[in-house]
Amino acid sequence: MFGEMLENVRKSCPLIHNITNYVTVNDCANILLACGGSPIMSDDIGEVEEITALCGGLNINIGTLNSRTIPSMLAAGRKANELGHTVVLDPVGAGASKLRTDTALKLLEKVKFSVIRGNISEIKTLAAGNGTTKGVDADSADRVTEENLERVCAFVKAFAAETGAVIAVTGAIDIVADSSTAYCIFNGHPMMSSVTGTGCQLSALTAAYVAANQENVLEAAAAAVCAMGVCGEIAYERLEPRDGNSSYRNYIIDAAYNLKGGILDKRAKYRII
Amino acid sequence: MFGEMLENVRKSCPLIHNITNYVTVNDCANILLACGGSPIMSDDIGEVEEITALCGGLNINIGTLNSRTIPSMLAAGRKANELGHTVVLDPVGAGASKLRTDTALKLLEKVKFSVIRGNISEIKTLAAGNGTTKGVDADSADRVTEENLERVCAFVKAFAAETGAVIAVTGAIDIVADSSTAYCIFNGHPMMSSVTGTGCQLSALTAAYVAANQENVLEAAAAAVCAMGVCGEIAYERLEPRDGNSSYRNYIIDAAYNLKGGILDKRAKYRII
Amino acid sequence: MFGEMLENVRKSCPLIHNITNYVTVNDCANILLACGGSPIMSDDIGEVEEITALCGGLNINIGTLNSRTIPSMLAAGRKANELGHTVVLDPVGAGASKLRTDTALKLLEKVKFSVIRGNISEIKTLAAGNGTTKGVDADSADRVTEENLERVCAFVKAFAAETGAVIAVTGAIDIVADSSTAYCIFNGHPMMSSVTGTGCQLSALTAAYVAANQENVLEAAAAAVCAMGVCGEIAYERLEPRDGNSSYRNYIIDAAYNLKGGILDKRAKYRII
Repeated sequence: MFGEMLENVRKSCPLIHNITNYVTVNDCANILLACGGSPIMSDDIGEVEEITALCGGLNINIGTLNSRTIPSMLAAGRKANELGHTVVLDPVGAGASKLRTDTALKLLEKVKFSVIRGNISEIKTLAAGNGTTKGVDADSADRVTEENLERVCAFVKAFAAETGAVIAVTGAIDIVADSSTAYCIFNGHPMMSSVTGTGCQLSALTAAYVAANQENVLEAAAAAVCAMGVCGEIAYERLEPRDGNSSYRNYIIDAAYNLKGGILDKRAKYRII
Repeated sequence: MFGEMLENVRKSCPLIHNITNYVTVNDCANILLACGGSPIMSDDIGEVEEITALCGGLNINIGTLNSRTIPSMLAAGRKANELGHTVVLDPVGAGASKLRTDTALKLLEKVKFSVIRGNISEIKTLAAGNGTTKGVDADSADRVTEENLERVCAFVKAFAAETGAVIAVTGAIDIVADSSTAYCIFNGHPMMSSVTGTGCQLSALTAAYVAANQENVLEAAAAAVCAMGVCGEIAYERLEPRDGNSSYRNYIIDAAYNLKGGILDKRAKYRII
Repeated sequence: MFGEMLENVRKSCPLIHNITNYVTVNDCANILLACGGSPIMSDDIGEVEEITALCGGLNINIGTLNSRTIPSMLAAGRKANELGHTVVLDPVGAGASKLRTDTALKLLEKVKFSVIRGNISEIKTLAAGNGTTKGVDADSADRVTEENLERVCAFVKAFAAETGAVIAVTGAIDIVADSSTAYCIFNGHPMMSSVTGTGCQLSALTAAYVAANQENVLEAAAAAVCAMGVCGEIAYERLEPRDGNSSYRNYIIDAAYNLKGGILDKRAKYRII
């Protein structure tokens, strides 16, 4: 099923509008091209509504949030909602500063998101209205494990019910849930956390998968999360002794470029709770 | 002839001032270093005139256009004109929003460009004063083919006559023309469109080639376009089974680093119309 | 000794706040992850004090300086000083424009830096209050050689005494000095100058090394400079015939990812003046 969703991305080539941070933006563009989508980056209030109208999806990422682009995020989000487009939120570092938390909450209030993707600390911050995120990484106290998985799934489903969005919590175990169903995904590799922006890349990828599979938001988001994990695994298998996180970054995007639906289906490891 | 122009870049090491987008800026810097030039990025109105005065060429790219940097583009462009420097315009996404189209047209009005490089949709937008660019990629209806090549060359020459700039239209077939002569270049590989920013990189490269060969703007721009295509071919030949667009990006820049004049001359495929 | 400092970075995983340029920011993030640190990028005045308070070190880089982020640099710097955090300054292009020179001097006046890292032209500019930097590269007239090494060391020590910071001047020979002791480091490879941002990466790395070894700022900064040089050597040894500066960039970061304390100690080439 995930494989078919991947193939739909390659068939429909969704154009994705990204209002995103300047740290990982190039990798986001390249992974969108790798998966069969097409990226456009634009953040000026003078054009974001027009640009988003041309696109199939909008990806909002607050990784290097600044006062100039907050109104752009709101305007683009509203326009995308009007047009019924896919909208993804990546609340990078929500909980690490009042500006990030407040902006993420304001975005949640003003824009209806198809998917919200973050680490567990960021998602907890949004659910609680405050948080203790350590920088842009999840707090280790918040870690999702086999032991707390059912409890975390219940929390994620409740937040999905509250927001009306599919919630994707990524980490060692990924949870992608709407109000009633949670996909717990076991793909990926710990080394992915040594590459800056694998989360940002996944959010961009999710926008493409959902835009190409709009009738099936939950499964499309789960397919994107699973695909990113599978790419992390394939890339890891390719590492040679002198390779490190920079080559690994390239191999992950390369894997997304070469990924076929059949491979994704074969390697997908998940259960539904 | 193209090979000699490449060697002139390596000899004179032109310093190129880039006011460019934050998506592909790192690749632009690295390809400038690869070809023997030197990059400086600066976009604040408080310094752009001073910075451009230090340089041999200016490359203006509107890929992530914002209201803060439009005055910087105009001021740097005017200063570069005053000093007789090479100035290149890359009108990324002109036609995709009113802001981009209007800004590109204003730049054309206020700044004399040595070279304008874009895809066919962007160039048509500038010529017509409006357009139907689909995001940052050329509209497929606008595609240059063997069948319409003569007609497109005539259009490109007319636009060159109107602007006084050399016009470089890149795509499956590239056209580089002044008012009387068009180089039709057949180098390159379709996979180049799966890497974000190969067009941006080419604009930066063009600024370096023209700055190092100022008495010969048309041929220098054609040499840069041809060199980029040859790098795309060499990089493609190097791909191994698990490589994708991220490794391909690296190989293209690597090829620019290793490219010799003799190889460029040998591999160049073009005809003059 | 340098090796132990490297291992301390891996043990303490310092979180480094970067206010840096958009050209090389992704490489800075990846080299911080490679060395065992953790990056966060944030430049909005509305959050920089909070973000820097979460971190162990602050890295200020003026590579794409703009009026919006100058107050952020000053505010973050003051906050980091209040909290006794490591603060590194990379005065990219000081001397190339009045804005850069004035901003660097203002930062020096308002913020107490642990380490200032730049090329010789940038450091001379700061010491003199003006300069003749050619873009972002050192002026060849300023080059550090075996012949002028003692004289340059005396100059660097004097500037260290004046500022109270450790000064790291990097080039073919690197000098890292406080008011009384200079490490002259002979590691590295000339090809490093063909990769954009190796200096920026080193400044980020230095912030991590010093944050993890706060009782020993001079040696920690020297260890970072030496480690970067060793990575440049290891990466160079790995180059294959078709590799160029883009693969070299990846190999440098890969080398930082794989670098062990024992290797650093074994390969370190320096003498103390």
